Amino acid sequence: MAGDWIRTVTAQTPTNIAVIKYWGKRDENLILPVNDSISVTLDPAHLCTTTTVAVSPGFDQDRMWLNGKEISLSGGRYQNCLREIRARAAEVEDKERGIKIAKDDWQKLHVHIASYNNFPTAAGLASSAAGFACLVFALAKLMNAKEDHSQLSAIARQGSGSACRSLYGGFVKWIMGKEENGSDSLAVQLVDEKHWDDLVIIIAVVSSRQKETSSTTGMRDTVETSLLLQHRAKEVVPKRVVKMEDAIQKHDFASFAQLTCADSNQFHAVCLDTCPPIFYMNDTSHRIISCVEKWNRSEETPQVAYTFDAGPNAVLIARNRKTAALLLQRLLYFFPPSSDTDMSSYVLGDKSILKDAGIQGINDVEALPPPPEIKDNVPPPRNRGEVSYFICTRPGRGPVLLSDESLALLDPSTGLPK
Amino acid sequence: MAGDWIRTVTAQTPTNIAVIKYWGKRDENLILPVNDSISVTLDPAHLCTTTTVAVSPGFDQDRMWLNGKEISLSGGRYQNCLREIRARAAEVEDKERGIKIAKDDWQKLHVHIASYNNFPTAAGLASSAAGFACLVFALAKLMNAKEDHSQLSAIARQGSGSACRSLYGGFVKWIMGKEENGSDSLAVQLVDEKHWDDLVIIIAVVSSRQKETSSTTGMRDTVETSLLLQHRAKEVVPKRVVKMEDAIQKHDFASFAQLTCADSNQFHAVCLDTCPPIFYMNDTSHRIISCVEKWNRSEETPQVAYTFDAGPNAVLIARNRKTAALLLQRLLYFFPPSSDTDMSSYVLGDKSILKDAGIQGINDVEALPPPPEIKDNVPPPRNRGEVSYFICTRPGRGPVLLSDESLALLDPSTGLPK
Repeated sequence: MAGDWIRTVTAQTPTNIAVIKYWGKRDENLILPVNDSISVTLDPAHLCTTTTVAVSPGFDQDRMWLNGKEISLSGGRYQNCLREIRARAAEVEDKERGIKIAKDDWQKLHVHIASYNNFPTAAGLASSAAGFACLVFALAKLMNAKEDHSQLSAIARQGSGSACRSLYGGFVKWIMGKEENGSDSLAVQLVDEKHWDDLVIIIAVVSSRQKETSSTTGMRDTVETSLLLQHRAKEVVPKRVVKMEDAIQKHDFASFAQLTCADSNQFHAVCLDTCPPIFYMNDTSHRIISCVEKWNRSEETPQVAYTFDAGPNAVLIARNRKTAALLLQRLLYFFPPSSDTDMSSYVLGDKSILKDAGIQGINDVEALPPPPEIKDNVPPPRNRGEVSYFICTRPGRGPVLLSDESLALLDPSTGLPK
Repeated sequence: MAGDWIRTVTAQTPTNIAVIKYWGKRDENLILPVNDSISVTLDPAHLCTTTTVAVSPGFDQDRMWLNGKEISLSGGRYQNCLREIRARAAEVEDKERGIKIAKDDWQKLHVHIASYNNFPTAAGLASSAAGFACLVFALAKLMNAKEDHSQLSAIARQGSGSACRSLYGGFVKWIMGKEENGSDSLAVQLVDEKHWDDLVIIIAVVSSRQKETSSTTGMRDTVETSLLLQHRAKEVVPKRVVKMEDAIQKHDFASFAQLTCADSNQFHAVCLDTCPPIFYMNDTSHRIISCVEKWNRSEETPQVAYTFDAGPNAVLIARNRKTAALLLQRLLYFFPPSSDTDMSSYVLGDKSILKDAGIQGINDVEALPPPPEIKDNVPPPRNRGEVSYFICTRPGRGPVLLSDESLALLDPSTGLPK
């Protein structure tokens, strides 16, 4: 280890949305949950974090930039992840560049980290899940840690609980574990992203002026005050997890939708049972649920599942592309864009769903008829401006390394953001 | 029994608001609940039902008018109440008018009923509770049934569950009972309205465009689908009822407020845990809760309790008049009237609270500063038009007979609405 070299690794990690929810820790420091949870990983083409990590003997401290802005690494969550990965670091040799880092060197070397979300951080789209997963994955590659994805997930968990589920694509289970030290609280892949590739996911990013309770504070309050949470964690969720795994294995969309919706609603129910009560869903969220419930009930079998995390945004999972197009028509009927919004910035991600829905431009949105399942004599109101935008996506793959140097976020000659 | 006489009785019965909620029946026909509940009776000066019942050998069928409009009595709930009271009818003799009705005559005689609410029926203010209580109370007097108020409450219960609690003033407990025939599922008075006469109650009638789930349908869906309701009914409520009775006996407002708010929130939590989920509170309801929670937390001890029934309206219970005036200032800050509303139709009921709050007119409302507990740099938004009106009231008395003939709703010579 000598000279003024810089070694970088760049990785890309997806975000995920829980279909059986994580809410409540049994250990605040180690981030150990009160129940198992199950998530679907979202396609990183539409929602992901990219992180470049760099090491150099020339760096005099650990530093991090998030979306171009330097942030502090002093928080316990970052420190836990850095410490755990450093403890697993191994020798690295790059003969071409004459770099050799011994196992013990990692305790002294500093790192630079730059991270970027391809979606708005503040939109409540689980940016911390993708972020910590990407940080841990990239650092593990940089430091040549030999841990497999499940072992890395137990480290990412210490940054942000749901981050552990972003170490895999497809459907993922976070096993709560039994050990006091948290060593068995980690993620496993149930099925990969090809197993159920009919599914289409539409996210409605809902406009909100409410200041939201952070999920860390919220779940602590729920654990301390809700008289329903323990019953949920001990009696309800274990049975739901078994049924959900079965529904996923068998592509049983009816059961999948029923379990997903019921578990989202129950998570928000225990939030409401908290003192002071926590409201993450707003009237717009309620209207989206009502739209989906009415449609599902009018069909022989559920067409769409909904789930909401710690905010008003809806994540809607359609059984296939055809259903997704019909869903998008309904969403655009009830939630047309404000008059100053153009369609290209209103429906993001996989725009082919918009085409399938027969929507070329704003005129097609305005001309949409009310959904046929609405039997009211007066057409139901259109809630213009209540949704900021939609993202069309699908289940996606787990973390990958990006070897293309042009995608790195740190300059390889300075170790600073490009 | 002969001739063309008409005999009438007029009664006035209060509405009530539960502080430990009734939600879920164990028997749909008899209306037997899954848990005890506790309510406070509201002053009939501001919220009550007046009912006149009349009997005459000249009536050829049972008929009823609600708020001046004839309605059908064929529903099972009306039929249950009429049958039960007729079964308990006794001989009536009016020597002055030469009327004598034998016990058995009541099975053949028909009745006319006219009922009037002094508040909007559709506003979600438990009009059916006051209505069935008043119907049963007035019929019992007309038919000289000797049953006491508790026994009458078990009959009113078969009209509308919460009606049984309107047979008493003050604080009332509906004991769920154990018998299959429902004979021990009845209301008892915990304390009368003089016991805790510091309390002031402000009702916010919230504007809503949502179609609400009826409580009958809603609680049936909850019983059938919620995995949290039974835990609430069996494990949570019994302990809360004991604590609530104790808080009421001791005038312990801190415990009273904590229990009232927690139980309202838990009731709405089990509604949300229902499939399909039931939302009774809307964004305005959430904002009212947030206002009260912030204020309570900024004081050493709770100032106000909130509770919401099957709709978005808030019922706010202030510890005393001084607190009520401070509460009204906050409510008028956050929820000023629309510009076309005048104050006399915006704050109804006991207007002296408005005077205590220093509000003479709309200009005083506009000039209100943000509440001191709001520390934001930017003043919080004022949500004009979100509340239709406020009603200031207090705990009140139980049913009474009105002997003043001019208050009767049926013409004593025709037996038809005046």
